[in-house]
Amino acid sequence: MSRFKHLISIEDLTKDDILYILQKAEELEFYAKGTKGDKINLLEGKILANLFFEPSTRTRMSFESAMKRLGGDVINMTAQEASSIVKGETLADTIRVVSEYADAIVIRHPLEGSARFAAELSSVPVINAGDGAGQHPTQTLLDLYTIKKESRLEGATIALMGDLKYSRTVHSLIKALTLFNTRIYLISPDALKLPEDFLEDVKGDISEATLDEVISEIDVLYVTRIQKERFPDEEEYRKVAGSYIINSEILSKAKKDLIVMHPLPRVNEISSDVDLTRHAIYFKQAFYGVPVRMAILCEVMGVALGEVKVG
Amino acid sequence: MSRFKHLISIEDLTKDDILYILQKAEELEFYAKGTKGDKINLLEGKILANLFFEPSTRTRMSFESAMKRLGGDVINMTAQEASSIVKGETLADTIRVVSEYADAIVIRHPLEGSARFAAELSSVPVINAGDGAGQHPTQTLLDLYTIKKESRLEGATIALMGDLKYSRTVHSLIKALTLFNTRIYLISPDALKLPEDFLEDVKGDISEATLDEVISEIDVLYVTRIQKERFPDEEEYRKVAGSYIINSEILSKAKKDLIVMHPLPRVNEISSDVDLTRHAIYFKQAFYGVPVRMAILCEVMGVALGEVKVG
Amino acid sequence: MSRFKHLISIEDLTKDDILYILQKAEELEFYAKGTKGDKINLLEGKILANLFFEPSTRTRMSFESAMKRLGGDVINMTAQEASSIVKGETLADTIRVVSEYADAIVIRHPLEGSARFAAELSSVPVINAGDGAGQHPTQTLLDLYTIKKESRLEGATIALMGDLKYSRTVHSLIKALTLFNTRIYLISPDALKLPEDFLEDVKGDISEATLDEVISEIDVLYVTRIQKERFPDEEEYRKVAGSYIINSEILSKAKKDLIVMHPLPRVNEISSDVDLTRHAIYFKQAFYGVPVRMAILCEVMGVALGEVKVG
Repeated sequence: MSRFKHLISIEDLTKDDILYILQKAEELEFYAKGTKGDKINLLEGKILANLFFEPSTRTRMSFESAMKRLGGDVINMTAQEASSIVKGETLADTIRVVSEYADAIVIRHPLEGSARFAAELSSVPVINAGDGAGQHPTQTLLDLYTIKKESRLEGATIALMGDLKYSRTVHSLIKALTLFNTRIYLISPDALKLPEDFLEDVKGDISEATLDEVISEIDVLYVTRIQKERFPDEEEYRKVAGSYIINSEILSKAKKDLIVMHPLPRVNEISSDVDLTRHAIYFKQAFYGVPVRMAILCEVMGVALGEVKVG
Repeated sequence: MSRFKHLISIEDLTKDDILYILQKAEELEFYAKGTKGDKINLLEGKILANLFFEPSTRTRMSFESAMKRLGGDVINMTAQEASSIVKGETLADTIRVVSEYADAIVIRHPLEGSARFAAELSSVPVINAGDGAGQHPTQTLLDLYTIKKESRLEGATIALMGDLKYSRTVHSLIKALTLFNTRIYLISPDALKLPEDFLEDVKGDISEATLDEVISEIDVLYVTRIQKERFPDEEEYRKVAGSYIINSEILSKAKKDLIVMHPLPRVNEISSDVDLTRHAIYFKQAFYGVPVRMAILCEVMGVALGEVKVG
Repeated sequence: MSRFKHLISIEDLTKDDILYILQKAEELEFYAKGTKGDKINLLEGKILANLFFEPSTRTRMSFESAMKRLGGDVINMTAQEASSIVKGETLADTIRVVSEYADAIVIRHPLEGSARFAAELSSVPVINAGDGAGQHPTQTLLDLYTIKKESRLEGATIALMGDLKYSRTVHSLIKALTLFNTRIYLISPDALKLPEDFLEDVKGDISEATLDEVISEIDVLYVTRIQKERFPDEEEYRKVAGSYIINSEILSKAKKDLIVMHPLPRVNEISSDVDLTRHAIYFKQAFYGVPVRMAILCEVMGVALGEVKVG
């Protein structure tokens, strides 16, 4: 039995559900690299349909890798196909047809709510890979997994920095982190602060700060992109963005085991001299998307992960 | 031994060939869904090349699913690759090269006759997935399969409605249906009637009708799109198209076991309130494309289906 | 142990390395066609990422076929994804992320040097599938394999004809051929001669000729495209290109076992009446890309080819 058939929002999961997925991801991580030629065929004979109505290379490749590491196969809808579908057919019909060709669907769509709508129509499980300003729950789960593996999740001190106003990633992560008794610092330009009504909905130890104030205290520094489009003019953008760049000098004041995370792609929020420091975890974070998505795919398709032996 | 190496036109098949494929599709249908994790590796080690020179998401995905359900693999040519090929190389050379990389080719191309041309040059089997105004034989076979499974094929009473002038799907289907002692009613606007010279070529019990006249008598109602481009102005289009929309009220006069079919995508020829009725078969029809294409793929690649055990 | 982890330039290989790959390709060739359903699962559980930043259908499909013939799987980056990556992220970050999702990377990129750059950043093997005016070593290896299989490599007399100035394929091939005591004739219009400084770097029996002078003597005629863009006006292009077209009349003066090769796509450098002669090897040459790439993929991923039994 699956704990959930669809995965639409991180808020649909309990703390126990989340810990369960993270545990299963850890059991599967050994098989997330093909180095030794080991393969675990938990999803052999299953087909995943990737329906990306907007491009997201990393997320799509990560799901494709996860499915194939489990012995399953993938059917991708191409961007050109997506755009010709958008012209000729309702999303409802597309979902109903594709669910006849596959055993699960991953959907990314620019419209908020589209993934939940798809789940209602699909005869097979639906996983939300981002619906506009809405949710991107597999990103949140891989972020939590990264924190758990590379630092600690329960009771950690975490700073979120950059665009806290528009970043879907940050909003979902904050909600999830409050389940784990974390202390959260918010570091952002005035124009990109976390919305007040969002804060009212969330209970937890959350406060605003500057990086200087908290750099020596935090376990995790989670950096996000500051997008040029958010600013009235380029002058303003440069001034603000320039003061939110992480480099190795700033990190010299950090705890030895501070980890720096980023959902990628980065533009220049993290200077490349950080890449070589022990703090840089963002490429490993990308890798962790594979075992986490392996666990999710197994869960929605009802495959008994309990039988997995860790290699 | 294969009954046919290539599948270019439904007219290349005898009635016996058609019944053979439908029978094999029925044997394979159990494996066309991955629900239970069963997999039948009849085409393990084989590679199918999908050469779509124009997008057709459903058809491409259906073939890809069929091939993968059989344990085979697929190489897709992307639309961008197709367009750069069209610029730089003859179709003949493309086919000759791709047939060195794969064990069978599915081709969709805007030019009538291109699939037969490809079959002459290819060193591996070629399946026509639509060549302009020409043929689309796997659609016809899945239509026949749907009628056989959900209604009855021999002796059925079938109404074809919508654009009967330009619809390739309808033309091929009529020719095939006449092999099965069916009664066929043609329902269409004057401007979109079946061409007279087409009718002269076909022998069978075929007559024009209105939906009202035959709705209570028919076993199958096959609806196709009426395309705006076929009309001189939008006013004319709206008037005509508006009177060819199927809704649940019209269906209240139908036989209890009438099935409504559509090759998809639909625009608004079938109102969404029909979706929930027992008459709506069009999504199941899309699914049936998978077992039918599985049977065809096995046949052209010479895999002995006789050994298949139905699960 | 692998002889090489990455394959960036043919010049990184010794003559012994080249002969080793050609030998392994020959052992694998039986499995490069799926005709008999035989499959050799040397790369089962491995994933190859195809990163094509410019389209090259034949090369991509050939790699995909090679990987799948070996039981491995492939993740393709689409052209649209490539262009959105180019906008948003450095090549360095893309490579670092993708190397977390796959066990090897094939890269094609318009910028010379990009493949070697990628190899330095990747945590998994990188194979260069063409980097601008730079290298395309798997093309060179399949050319050598074709010559070895269809003619003879050691001591052969080979004419290279067409655009010898800009053709990356020709430059790499000349360098490799000089390792095998070959006699090389260069046949080209004045405007498209092999650059003199290139000739200074290469030691070997190389001389200019006309086709008429050498046609009766050569074992191999390697033809390349003459591109319109290289000429100041179309008049000039037509005059030159017209005199570099191979047809069956010219070949009537050739040795019986002369082979004609072309890296494809051809435009009209080889007349279609040559296709039916025994001299035409260019489609077989395309096929040979599959076993050669199978051997290379096994080598970079460290799979012991020594255990392969030839079927």
